[in-house]
Amino acid sequence: MPNKIRKIGVLTSGGDSPGMNAAIRSVVRTCAFHNIGCIGIYRGYQGMIEGDFKEMGPRTVNNIINKGGTILKSARSMEFKTPEGRKKAYDNLVKAEIDAFVVIGGDGSFTGALIFNSEFNFPVIGIPGTIDNDIFGTSHTLGYDTALNTVVEVIDKIRDTASSHNRLFLVEVMGRDAGHIALNAGIGAGAEEILIPEEDMGLDRLLDSLKKSKATGKSSSIVVIAEGDKIGKSVFELKDYVESNLPEYDVRVSVLGHMQRGGSPSCFDRVLASRLGVKAVESLLEGKSNLMAGIIADKITLTPLEQAIKGHSEIDRELLRVSDIVSI
Amino acid sequence: MPNKIRKIGVLTSGGDSPGMNAAIRSVVRTCAFHNIGCIGIYRGYQGMIEGDFKEMGPRTVNNIINKGGTILKSARSMEFKTPEGRKKAYDNLVKAEIDAFVVIGGDGSFTGALIFNSEFNFPVIGIPGTIDNDIFGTSHTLGYDTALNTVVEVIDKIRDTASSHNRLFLVEVMGRDAGHIALNAGIGAGAEEILIPEEDMGLDRLLDSLKKSKATGKSSSIVVIAEGDKIGKSVFELKDYVESNLPEYDVRVSVLGHMQRGGSPSCFDRVLASRLGVKAVESLLEGKSNLMAGIIADKITLTPLEQAIKGHSEIDRELLRVSDIVSI
Amino acid sequence: MPNKIRKIGVLTSGGDSPGMNAAIRSVVRTCAFHNIGCIGIYRGYQGMIEGDFKEMGPRTVNNIINKGGTILKSARSMEFKTPEGRKKAYDNLVKAEIDAFVVIGGDGSFTGALIFNSEFNFPVIGIPGTIDNDIFGTSHTLGYDTALNTVVEVIDKIRDTASSHNRLFLVEVMGRDAGHIALNAGIGAGAEEILIPEEDMGLDRLLDSLKKSKATGKSSSIVVIAEGDKIGKSVFELKDYVESNLPEYDVRVSVLGHMQRGGSPSCFDRVLASRLGVKAVESLLEGKSNLMAGIIADKITLTPLEQAIKGHSEIDRELLRVSDIVSI
Amino acid sequence: MPNKIRKIGVLTSGGDSPGMNAAIRSVVRTCAFHNIGCIGIYRGYQGMIEGDFKEMGPRTVNNIINKGGTILKSARSMEFKTPEGRKKAYDNLVKAEIDAFVVIGGDGSFTGALIFNSEFNFPVIGIPGTIDNDIFGTSHTLGYDTALNTVVEVIDKIRDTASSHNRLFLVEVMGRDAGHIALNAGIGAGAEEILIPEEDMGLDRLLDSLKKSKATGKSSSIVVIAEGDKIGKSVFELKDYVESNLPEYDVRVSVLGHMQRGGSPSCFDRVLASRLGVKAVESLLEGKSNLMAGIIADKITLTPLEQAIKGHSEIDRELLRVSDIVSI
Repeated sequence: MPNKIRKIGVLTSGGDSPGMNAAIRSVVRTCAFHNIGCIGIYRGYQGMIEGDFKEMGPRTVNNIINKGGTILKSARSMEFKTPEGRKKAYDNLVKAEIDAFVVIGGDGSFTGALIFNSEFNFPVIGIPGTIDNDIFGTSHTLGYDTALNTVVEVIDKIRDTASSHNRLFLVEVMGRDAGHIALNAGIGAGAEEILIPEEDMGLDRLLDSLKKSKATGKSSSIVVIAEGDKIGKSVFELKDYVESNLPEYDVRVSVLGHMQRGGSPSCFDRVLASRLGVKAVESLLEGKSNLMAGIIADKITLTPLEQAIKGHSEIDRELLRVSDIVSI
Repeated sequence: MPNKIRKIGVLTSGGDSPGMNAAIRSVVRTCAFHNIGCIGIYRGYQGMIEGDFKEMGPRTVNNIINKGGTILKSARSMEFKTPEGRKKAYDNLVKAEIDAFVVIGGDGSFTGALIFNSEFNFPVIGIPGTIDNDIFGTSHTLGYDTALNTVVEVIDKIRDTASSHNRLFLVEVMGRDAGHIALNAGIGAGAEEILIPEEDMGLDRLLDSLKKSKATGKSSSIVVIAEGDKIGKSVFELKDYVESNLPEYDVRVSVLGHMQRGGSPSCFDRVLASRLGVKAVESLLEGKSNLMAGIIADKITLTPLEQAIKGHSEIDRELLRVSDIVSI
Repeated sequence: MPNKIRKIGVLTSGGDSPGMNAAIRSVVRTCAFHNIGCIGIYRGYQGMIEGDFKEMGPRTVNNIINKGGTILKSARSMEFKTPEGRKKAYDNLVKAEIDAFVVIGGDGSFTGALIFNSEFNFPVIGIPGTIDNDIFGTSHTLGYDTALNTVVEVIDKIRDTASSHNRLFLVEVMGRDAGHIALNAGIGAGAEEILIPEEDMGLDRLLDSLKKSKATGKSSSIVVIAEGDKIGKSVFELKDYVESNLPEYDVRVSVLGHMQRGGSPSCFDRVLASRLGVKAVESLLEGKSNLMAGIIADKITLTPLEQAIKGHSEIDRELLRVSDIVSI
Repeated sequence: MPNKIRKIGVLTSGGDSPGMNAAIRSVVRTCAFHNIGCIGIYRGYQGMIEGDFKEMGPRTVNNIINKGGTILKSARSMEFKTPEGRKKAYDNLVKAEIDAFVVIGGDGSFTGALIFNSEFNFPVIGIPGTIDNDIFGTSHTLGYDTALNTVVEVIDKIRDTASSHNRLFLVEVMGRDAGHIALNAGIGAGAEEILIPEEDMGLDRLLDSLKKSKATGKSSSIVVIAEGDKIGKSVFELKDYVESNLPEYDVRVSVLGHMQRGGSPSCFDRVLASRLGVKAVESLLEGKSNLMAGIIADKITLTPLEQAIKGHSEIDRELLRVSDIVSI
């Protein structure tokens, strides 16, 4: 490990999320604040292997705090999974006189960073950037709050037409392994029921709930479904199932898809990104490594990357009860 | 036909669209302005058959100008397609002392109105309300401008993630028979190519265009596709086709669906709705019937409902050329 | 105090904020869930004095979760500050068989509740609803998160024109006694400097910072100023001061004003409102009183109303340092 | 005049407006489509004088169609008002081998272009870019539609708080000489009254209208006021006047200011910008000059710059009547 950090690299890796640009801006400017250099590494680890680097200064990141996506681009790199690929990446970092890097991404990106560190003793700090909020060691990942707002805004529009026509909408949102988006956006959107990977509510309960809904005079309903729900049916199969069992319902499907990853970040995500960028750079300057900057109980914290990867970001089960109550 | 109009009914029928509430508000208040009664007819023609009526005054429609959907609800009515159904509807109108009605909807709703008028000589004026802009006799239908904004805002979000990952997105928008949304939102969203029902561009041209795109250094692309495009493949089949022919592309699909029908109306749609509501009521008061209030060349006009149904709202083919140029 | 709660009143009081409707919906539905009655009290304490009550059921609050403002209206009541006023209010509550109430509002509303409780031993739970986030015992008040997003979205627009013209904008945001909005929205909007009531940065530092800005090549700047900043000049006087001292700057002023109080609540505010509503009602049912439901470290908590009123919601001073760094 | 156009300059001048970037993109890409060069001229005429030029290609304008402001920046130039300044500008154009230019701006920008053309016989086409919609020869200027949406969205937020508190809001919008924004956004926002430069409604009528409002049970009201209204009082003086004459009203003021100039352009403005850019470049290639590309009755047209400057863009007086009716 270099005795002194003089230049820091920054990259975004894995799926992009709103707030990544704000985090890049913060990393770049914190470097400038502490009078050290900053290098943007393009297209994640693949760009590290290809030496796709660019010097970044405070003015390079003007007017990006409010932009979705990532100006450094992102990519998944097969080559970085090989020792040869990582060796190339290391050589490039050395050649560019980069002494440490900040990686903004999710589990997979952190795993790559840990392996890289174990091989080359290269200092690295992670910043959790993914809309799924499925990373242990932080109550919020970058982009999650923005995605929640995107989802409720879209469901608000769907509700306009649902309630004009007395229809049931099945809305699929992102979340293969984690129900955070479905659960929170579902409550925020006033969903009748919410299906998440963490909880097998069963088809019977769903039908019961929809029957009761009609009985209590609800004229339209929204069911929010995480991609990885436990029902084991696609959202289109679920539509058929509901329609065949509850013919009184006119069911429509909406799969929100990638729009959930984009958009201008919310204020929360911008502030969080700014704070995490400062923490990441200053932690490197203090000689720390293999940690993730996160937020717990409104305070910026550091968690070992290893824990961040292995741990599981649990949903707040009290929210399931709140959902049951407020959707009565 | 009554010699004098003392009470006017208003209903929304067919698919809902943003601006319908603003039009209802305008109809109700124009009635109040001219000191005649106004009755809201719920759930379209079905509510007319069931006598689902409610008196409306200026304060009934407070704070709805900015709301999506329709407070009068909408429905499709099989029963109104039968003489018996229409007779029931007529009896209800007579009983409620309604002398004329304004129907806000699309082709199907206007056809119902014409048949009803031919049977009972009942005065009726139509207001075009559909996001598809597929009605002859008006350059803009209510909700169309709002839907265009909804679509470009969503594609802006998709572009954030597309350009972060150098991906190709196939985005399906509404428009079974008309390419207005795809063509205009496609240009507005900076789409690479636009597939519409009115024009068979052929698969070869699409592939050529995508190849050229890569060659000229475009790193990501959006293709906007109307539901009823001429390619004859579903958007998912198209993804497979592109990927097998252009393996350099990482293709994703997004089907925007019903969110396009909802949302707070744009200023344009609110003003248009206000103007059409005034025109519809005042036309009835002048003894007119069987006409649609619309806008042509920025002026409020009247078109015979029969023409509105039979005619076709052509796309502006110059826009195809503009799209080709600005997507270079 | 009644031995058993059979009917709960709910009111909104003081300045309105986004999320109040979501909280009303939650209170109403939690009552229904527990099979007790719920009465909406209109126009805050004034409506309590005038007996302006309406029974609320689960369907009364359909489709309001996403609406700004408060369907129960709000008002400030001089009469409630008198023992006679409060006696009238008490008599009305008794007559309506209301056994307890939930008040959604700020400091003033909670003070009224405490006095009322001390006189009549009437059970009451508070929910913090104000965009200013100036209430002790909760990290977030209802509406605060939404207001932050509103402010950054507006400043994003201002930045478009600021950077097109190389101008300096002084943007005044709400916050007479608390800098939460200015500090967080300032960081989120990428502000050059942030002036808040909690910190006297002095005019010299502001001028220095602006000079340095020009020197480092920033072409446009945003300064965010809380209403109650310590500078002791109005935002218009500040414009004159800056222009006379730094003639190289073309300075414009924007006072955001009441738009900050409105708008559809963010997902965060909707979920928080739902959780606080459940907690408030269930706390009353458990025999508790004189408490405020709030959120601390992401958990729903109860704080004595007396503390909530007397305590001060401190800003996070680390954010001042973050702002200095990321605005370099 | 050069016999053949091989290179075209493009600049934005005067106040910026949403859609300018989309127009720049269209000009640049239309040049590429026709295989001619394109030069971006920064900071309007001032940059022309200083030779602040940059070559633009199709990829230079990637991902700007949805951005507010202008990437070419804008500025007002005193020097361009002098023959010496214009001579410098001409010399720079000649040196850079620019054969013609497209100027995106308003009246003042067009006047400069005409004088320049008269002196140097230099081909120029104008594109109307201003949110005020005050240019003759086009039904819509670039940015006007977006500004209308911005204004109604902000007033929607203000209405939330207005109706929660039963208040009257005086909302000042842009428009020193033209009431287009006030009139259309006023109708779109459901304003009680609208004050514009084109019409002296008188203070008495305003008071009468507000009195009647209260009488008919309206609980809150919005009055939209153009900067250049005929009342001759500032919006703050108007507040005092209303409060002293109608003490039953609690009046608040909101001055929307520069946020109206920013924001992502609406679909309409993006499509219009794309069409006008194509028209401007192709008109130059056809040997035309001294014209403005505009839209009349939904068709792209050319109007002599001289007429565009001298003519007046009239408001549609029928809208005043519509406003009176729908605000009953």
